Amino acid sequence: MPKTMLAVVKPTAAPGSEIREVKVPTFGPTDVLVKVKVASICGTDLHIYEWDRWAQGRIHPPLIPGHEFCGEVTAYGCEVTSVKEGDFVSAEMHVACGKCLQCRTGEAHICQNVKIIGVDADGAFAEYVVIPESNIWKLDPAIPVEYASILDPLGNAVHTVLAGEIAAKTVAITGAGPIGLFSLVVARAVGAAQVFIVEINEHRRRLAKQMHADLVLDPSKEDVKSILLKRTGGLGVDVVLEMAGHPDAIRTAFDVVRRGGRISLLGLTSKPISLNFSEDIIFKGITVQGINGRRMYQTWYQMTALLKAGKLDLHPVITDRMAMKDFSLAMERLKTGAASKILVYPNGTK
Amino acid sequence: MPKTMLAVVKPTAAPGSEIREVKVPTFGPTDVLVKVKVASICGTDLHIYEWDRWAQGRIHPPLIPGHEFCGEVTAYGCEVTSVKEGDFVSAEMHVACGKCLQCRTGEAHICQNVKIIGVDADGAFAEYVVIPESNIWKLDPAIPVEYASILDPLGNAVHTVLAGEIAAKTVAITGAGPIGLFSLVVARAVGAAQVFIVEINEHRRRLAKQMHADLVLDPSKEDVKSILLKRTGGLGVDVVLEMAGHPDAIRTAFDVVRRGGRISLLGLTSKPISLNFSEDIIFKGITVQGINGRRMYQTWYQMTALLKAGKLDLHPVITDRMAMKDFSLAMERLKTGAASKILVYPNGTK
Amino acid sequence: MPKTMLAVVKPTAAPGSEIREVKVPTFGPTDVLVKVKVASICGTDLHIYEWDRWAQGRIHPPLIPGHEFCGEVTAYGCEVTSVKEGDFVSAEMHVACGKCLQCRTGEAHICQNVKIIGVDADGAFAEYVVIPESNIWKLDPAIPVEYASILDPLGNAVHTVLAGEIAAKTVAITGAGPIGLFSLVVARAVGAAQVFIVEINEHRRRLAKQMHADLVLDPSKEDVKSILLKRTGGLGVDVVLEMAGHPDAIRTAFDVVRRGGRISLLGLTSKPISLNFSEDIIFKGITVQGINGRRMYQTWYQMTALLKAGKLDLHPVITDRMAMKDFSLAMERLKTGAASKILVYPNGTK
Amino acid sequence: MPKTMLAVVKPTAAPGSEIREVKVPTFGPTDVLVKVKVASICGTDLHIYEWDRWAQGRIHPPLIPGHEFCGEVTAYGCEVTSVKEGDFVSAEMHVACGKCLQCRTGEAHICQNVKIIGVDADGAFAEYVVIPESNIWKLDPAIPVEYASILDPLGNAVHTVLAGEIAAKTVAITGAGPIGLFSLVVARAVGAAQVFIVEINEHRRRLAKQMHADLVLDPSKEDVKSILLKRTGGLGVDVVLEMAGHPDAIRTAFDVVRRGGRISLLGLTSKPISLNFSEDIIFKGITVQGINGRRMYQTWYQMTALLKAGKLDLHPVITDRMAMKDFSLAMERLKTGAASKILVYPNGTK
Repeated sequence: MPKTMLAVVKPTAAPGSEIREVKVPTFGPTDVLVKVKVASICGTDLHIYEWDRWAQGRIHPPLIPGHEFCGEVTAYGCEVTSVKEGDFVSAEMHVACGKCLQCRTGEAHICQNVKIIGVDADGAFAEYVVIPESNIWKLDPAIPVEYASILDPLGNAVHTVLAGEIAAKTVAITGAGPIGLFSLVVARAVGAAQVFIVEINEHRRRLAKQMHADLVLDPSKEDVKSILLKRTGGLGVDVVLEMAGHPDAIRTAFDVVRRGGRISLLGLTSKPISLNFSEDIIFKGITVQGINGRRMYQTWYQMTALLKAGKLDLHPVITDRMAMKDFSLAMERLKTGAASKILVYPNGTK
Repeated sequence: MPKTMLAVVKPTAAPGSEIREVKVPTFGPTDVLVKVKVASICGTDLHIYEWDRWAQGRIHPPLIPGHEFCGEVTAYGCEVTSVKEGDFVSAEMHVACGKCLQCRTGEAHICQNVKIIGVDADGAFAEYVVIPESNIWKLDPAIPVEYASILDPLGNAVHTVLAGEIAAKTVAITGAGPIGLFSLVVARAVGAAQVFIVEINEHRRRLAKQMHADLVLDPSKEDVKSILLKRTGGLGVDVVLEMAGHPDAIRTAFDVVRRGGRISLLGLTSKPISLNFSEDIIFKGITVQGINGRRMYQTWYQMTALLKAGKLDLHPVITDRMAMKDFSLAMERLKTGAASKILVYPNGTK
Repeated sequence: MPKTMLAVVKPTAAPGSEIREVKVPTFGPTDVLVKVKVASICGTDLHIYEWDRWAQGRIHPPLIPGHEFCGEVTAYGCEVTSVKEGDFVSAEMHVACGKCLQCRTGEAHICQNVKIIGVDADGAFAEYVVIPESNIWKLDPAIPVEYASILDPLGNAVHTVLAGEIAAKTVAITGAGPIGLFSLVVARAVGAAQVFIVEINEHRRRLAKQMHADLVLDPSKEDVKSILLKRTGGLGVDVVLEMAGHPDAIRTAFDVVRRGGRISLLGLTSKPISLNFSEDIIFKGITVQGINGRRMYQTWYQMTALLKAGKLDLHPVITDRMAMKDFSLAMERLKTGAASKILVYPNGTK
Repeated sequence: MPKTMLAVVKPTAAPGSEIREVKVPTFGPTDVLVKVKVASICGTDLHIYEWDRWAQGRIHPPLIPGHEFCGEVTAYGCEVTSVKEGDFVSAEMHVACGKCLQCRTGEAHICQNVKIIGVDADGAFAEYVVIPESNIWKLDPAIPVEYASILDPLGNAVHTVLAGEIAAKTVAITGAGPIGLFSLVVARAVGAAQVFIVEINEHRRRLAKQMHADLVLDPSKEDVKSILLKRTGGLGVDVVLEMAGHPDAIRTAFDVVRRGGRISLLGLTSKPISLNFSEDIIFKGITVQGINGRRMYQTWYQMTALLKAGKLDLHPVITDRMAMKDFSLAMERLKTGAASKILVYPNGTK
């Protein structure tokens, strides 16, 4: 075992990051040390890199970011029983406390005391990362390595799509970033009758078409509400998955959902949103859900089953593969929207 | 059968109403003519009386208002089979189309083409009212006559309380008008662990105490959020039933609900409400529901079962009993908040 | 309009049937007269033909059987508003009373007073059939004519598959008659991870393979329990859809379902079945559901949406197309199991 | 700390038990040692005492039985963080593995590898018992000590009652042993409209009446089916909670449940039960559930909330309080059905 390793480090409370040589992390009796094979980049990582208001309030540098990954078990603590050296694994990076009401009633994804590896503790943009045994997810060999590194955002999509009835429903997805695109693939795989994408970015719209959306709309040019009402025989859409977090997208969600429909909100907002509760929610009798993380571990079982069955083609979303040293370049690619999901190879084996 | 009858009439598009002699209404082959025993007054009737913006946009005078009542079957059309003369009945006053998707999938309470008797057609502040057979609800003799006239708002409460899990839950009700108070009684009857009332009006708070609320708070003087967090061990409230429609009450709803909790919205709003979706809905993983009317006819069965079992003491809510000629006086009593539910006796038998 | 028509008639309380010239049926003010384009044959029709014990107790000859069909609106009563001449339609043949608790609470498929056209009243093996307007299902032009004649059994399958969670689940179907095969197609379309078929008849097993079952087992030769346990990593199957009604199939259902799983029972049994409740149900914490008919009309909307989206390839199930005069021949083909779904053309336009 | 303690011991594979002096049990780093204040006797303890067929297959003597108790924390392992000396606690005695699919998807009550303290390991009929920290339930001081010792069977009742809709429903409970009686109290507390008890033992029927059952029937003398049909207007009962495990009781359950109703099975059976699936389950469209243990830990939260709110009067069920030395006498009292729930005081402070 080496003593040091390379990692992406946010060194101080300021924009940017560096590639540094740091100590290989130590681990406790219930922890697993994983050699990272692939780590992928999330929008959250860009917020941390750019040091926006959210990052300033949440992140305590120095920090190694990175919460989407897969790798190989290298070592583990003396109380660990469920993995052995060489096992191929990913992990749920939300570490729940296990003791609050939510954790003890099957809702650990909204734990009162959650800590996120890669946000609140050192993460996966490094040659090695430490994960508690309870959060390790052993990977079925049938799952492709590249997919194994994006289970975190895929799990967001699976959680959102399956948070209510979906089979035989019409579905609108507002926002076609990686989670929006994954939601498109998952919704189709579990029997959504039609999936409509609303997305302002051209690159993303192109991916949505490539991934078999039934209709892809540009809200900057098209009258989304009237098109979707027409497309649904005047009824409105059964289910809206809101993945953008933008006020216009949220307005669209409430405009197009049908009476009795569901809106599942995942896209984080940075500004207050104004609604007419009577018209938007009450008279329509709709249900609005906040969606957070992945259900532990129901979402992981669901995701594994769908992947093993070959029901999810995620390849178009993976637009870039980069060495870890090019992390800053990756950040630039993300900003423009030209890249969707970028894979990083900390141990150099791209 | 008399040819004419007395009724409360909104004669023109202006504030106020009159007691007039009008023709007893005619009825079709599938209709039932009911002699009104008791009709009760809803906040909606006050909106119509005062001719507010909502009323101006919805009501087409001349109109006989009134949508909460009970009475006796006097006559019926040739195709009616389920009632006979003298039957004691109430009615669901939302007349659903029966042909839209919502109607055909068990969600007639959010019918796309609903018409409300007493709003869109002549209602129950009259000696007689006409109701389609499909909407008649035959009353079990065990149900007290006074309660029989308030099944419409009681049904709103039953629908809201039972729209999600409630047994063993902590519940906050924002707004203690008649439906809020009914919700208190129903929530207690179906096993809510504690019920907290938040209400600015002193008369209403007094009623809430009398009706065994576990805690009654005045938001104009008390720090509702910190009191309810303390009362729930820092957790927050499992279920919030929003009955006020006021921006401050809605703000309170989102402040006090716990992670994973439910907010059911019934109180109609007249202004846009601003929310921080990330903090208020998404991170907390809550569910927000719009509630409308009564489920046809599940709510009616539930309500009947609870009333027959003697589980609901609604008497404190019925504060006034008046002759129909005093309708304008009743409106004044409602405006001040001094009255809660006012019963009117169109056939003079108070 | 002709005065007489040809029809399959069960003339007396005895095995067999005849092709007879009978009067075109009359219809009431709320009825629709439909010219039958295609009618398809159900196992129930074979029971009636063979005059088994069930038929002897239920059927009152003379009767025209047939409850799966599509056709064209020819005429209708004076109160009908939702169809016009020439409309292409199918129908829900369970005529619910509309007045019992089940009907009034969204469960009309288990109406206390249901009557079935083709069983309790003259059905669709005829040039014309009369249907109440409420039960007519207008067909989207995107739906193929052959599929339009088999919506009744397809609806059984959709109802069964969607009676609980199914996405990402492993599913075993015991019995691969037409409804079992439709269930296979539907389960795959709505994201079942793997679908296993257990069927003793070779013809049916061949169809199941052709329709992409993940595994097809012959219980007369293979150890179904140990194979399915192995295939699910020792866990057992998440969902079992029981379509055979045979004691051995039911035994298999309880043997292979996992702890916490679902068994949905559709296949009718003719003998008592013996279970060890502690081992078979209680310790495993499973849910067992009885499934009957189609949800009115949620199942019809779901089925239409899936068919319009092109998600269901049902062609292999349709093995035979016959003129109505060959009805007895069709019965013979069914008995051997050589035929699966047989289409009949009462108006000669095969 | 003493080195030895008194305990009820099943010394060998034969009927009976002894009071013996044994070593105070040792505990590991994640365990809690509890001084038992009250332990109560379950029917399972009688099976072990009498050494019936089930006991012969499951129990490995020597064993200290006892799985219902409360007590005070005396000592704990070095990794325990959530309790301190003197804390008043009870415990979930089903120790789930935490690693199987059921455990990781919120269904630990049907864990594939569960071990039960008092059945598979030494239990609570002793001065001290060892419990893993994860299974300790800290008791709210508002909960009476006697109730604290019967949370295990009360939890069975809460789990069963709340396993489906219950508010405003009619409920039949077959079998009025302690769990049946607790179910009666819980069902009433959460708004069941009427609760009917079917019980053959006179002592138990007397308790059911005392605990406010709406109707108590003796199936050896009364025609339960026709009485309950009449009582429900010919409809049948909405929910049946089967607590007896006797073939006659199960037959009654299927006879009286209404179309679309729920049967929740808790009572363990020792013989196969024969059903006519078509008539008993499929045509009626009912749901049958196997119920096992308590949901971890949702049931515990629900139970605590109901007890704290003072909604459950359980006193009539506690018929006997005995010193531990009289354990054999207690067994005799149970056999006759004269006793319902018997409390035992291992540390002599009755």
